Amino acid sequence: MSRRGDEKTVNRVDKLKPHEQLAAMLADDMAAMNALIRERMASEHAPRIPEVTAHLVDAGGKRIRPLLTLATARLCGYGGPYHVHLAATVEFIHTATLLHDDVVDESARRRGKPTANLLWDNKSSVLVGDYLFSRSFQLMVETGSLRVLDILANASATIAEGEVLQLTAASDLATDEATYLQVVRGKTAALFSAATEVGGVIAGADEAITKALYDFGDALGISFQIVDDLLDYGGATASLGKNTGDDFRERKLTLPVIKAVARADAEELAFWERTIEKGKQQDGDLDHAMALLNNYGTLEETRQEALAWAEKAKQALSALPDHKIRDLLSGLSDFVVSRVV
Amino acid sequence: MSRRGDEKTVNRVDKLKPHEQLAAMLADDMAAMNALIRERMASEHAPRIPEVTAHLVDAGGKRIRPLLTLATARLCGYGGPYHVHLAATVEFIHTATLLHDDVVDESARRRGKPTANLLWDNKSSVLVGDYLFSRSFQLMVETGSLRVLDILANASATIAEGEVLQLTAASDLATDEATYLQVVRGKTAALFSAATEVGGVIAGADEAITKALYDFGDALGISFQIVDDLLDYGGATASLGKNTGDDFRERKLTLPVIKAVARADAEELAFWERTIEKGKQQDGDLDHAMALLNNYGTLEETRQEALAWAEKAKQALSALPDHKIRDLLSGLSDFVVSRVV
Repeated sequence: MSRRGDEKTVNRVDKLKPHEQLAAMLADDMAAMNALIRERMASEHAPRIPEVTAHLVDAGGKRIRPLLTLATARLCGYGGPYHVHLAATVEFIHTATLLHDDVVDESARRRGKPTANLLWDNKSSVLVGDYLFSRSFQLMVETGSLRVLDILANASATIAEGEVLQLTAASDLATDEATYLQVVRGKTAALFSAATEVGGVIAGADEAITKALYDFGDALGISFQIVDDLLDYGGATASLGKNTGDDFRERKLTLPVIKAVARADAEELAFWERTIEKGKQQDGDLDHAMALLNNYGTLEETRQEALAWAEKAKQALSALPDHKIRDLLSGLSDFVVSRVV
Repeated sequence: MSRRGDEKTVNRVDKLKPHEQLAAMLADDMAAMNALIRERMASEHAPRIPEVTAHLVDAGGKRIRPLLTLATARLCGYGGPYHVHLAATVEFIHTATLLHDDVVDESARRRGKPTANLLWDNKSSVLVGDYLFSRSFQLMVETGSLRVLDILANASATIAEGEVLQLTAASDLATDEATYLQVVRGKTAALFSAATEVGGVIAGADEAITKALYDFGDALGISFQIVDDLLDYGGATASLGKNTGDDFRERKLTLPVIKAVARADAEELAFWERTIEKGKQQDGDLDHAMALLNNYGTLEETRQEALAWAEKAKQALSALPDHKIRDLLSGLSDFVVSRVV
């Protein structure tokens, strides 16, 4: 390659999004992780397993969660092989969760996306999800680190508890912002914070560093999920498109609505009770809901909360050593909320 | 208590079944385990969780699996607290498996038993099952034994793989006895053998002992499941009652039918294809199936296999130290197959 060519590459890399730059920088680690995932999702006896997992794993996705593990381990100077095991662990847990979510939400059928429970059946999604959990468990045991196992066991419990909480809380108008945060930690932030913390732990980082990594992952995950929930209403500018309004239709209370319910007058409360609690929706309800969110400015308030969590994530990074990876993780925090700026 | 009273107690204990005698002997351990299960199945945030688990946990059951862990730990001279954690771990894994099985089989609806997926919904069964898996994971990490974690991680993978294998193999007439054994190991024997092996491992038993404990649990679990499958056809004497014939109606190939299919002539093969593979069953089919099993003597052959596995279980025990618990475990092997003698 010519020098000119190298410059081109550098320019191209600089234009990549922060997580794409991280993936490029950690390309060898990512390749090793992908190979390990492929190896471990196989099954000697049950061919249905790789069929189902390949459907999800090949679909790609950004692999943000395992990337966080690889990045934090490298940031802390790790030179061993087990960050790859932990990254694959994190991705398997994420994939297993998606499979079980498909069964719980049944939303894939409505959105027309061909998910595993549609292509095969709910049985396969439940059992292949269980298989991936057990595979992730084997991978983390191989690291030989009880501290890592403790972190991932606790994260698993938080994830499962958050999912169950969401079942009962999502359509209950009494759900407050504290409960919403608990659900968000379960569905998203717990795996983010475990992913970043175990990267530091496997590298033997000290307590201050691993605590900072946990705080970073927790805050990044929360801002990520709040942004996701906000985008479901078209973002702070409330522009509804074909992929918006799902949470309203599925009667899932998220932050913009929780804030609007808290200020609702009697008539508005009756509207939320009918549409969310009772699920009796009719034409025009989504437009009316959007008008209420706009009137009370709860979409903009929600955006401010996402920004505050992203800021908190960046602050946590200040405890970490100066490093190109640290800068990219900071850039990732900005990028996550840039989707709704 | 008078001496006379003591004698009465002894006489009563001697009339108990082997697992009841074990439970009486290990009453303190069982009480500690029940307390730990109750403590850990709670959830601060999601009240749905204890509702669902209490339904299953309070229903009782014989708790054979955790009893095996407590018994083998004590047999190996263990004096610490962690056999209780491991017994609770094993019971949580078993309960989680039952919850997911309910969703997969949907059989509770047909049999009219009020299972969790009926009383609540499939979502709750999937997610509360996940919660129990994660709780079991936390419990085993607390033991601090990587060897124990390795055994339970591998058992989890075998269980999940066996369940998926059953999905595809159960109604496939090409399923042979080797595949049946693989499924049986997954659905039953893997947790039995893990339960017995970790009892020895936590007690620090040597390799020969832990190997013997594994072999015992594996063979006991296999004979247990074969007996269960045989009883579904009324046992070796083929007496159909109201709780029999479920496997045939649910198109699940088990050993008696696999053996009959292997010897079927063209007409019989067409019968099995129609009833099991295609699931087009009509009145009189179960009677005809029973007649075929009787003609070929496959129920008696299946009973002989169960007896052989029970014998293998008892042989494995010969490597263990002379102990009252060893005798009761041997008695348990006999008891399991006595249901079809």
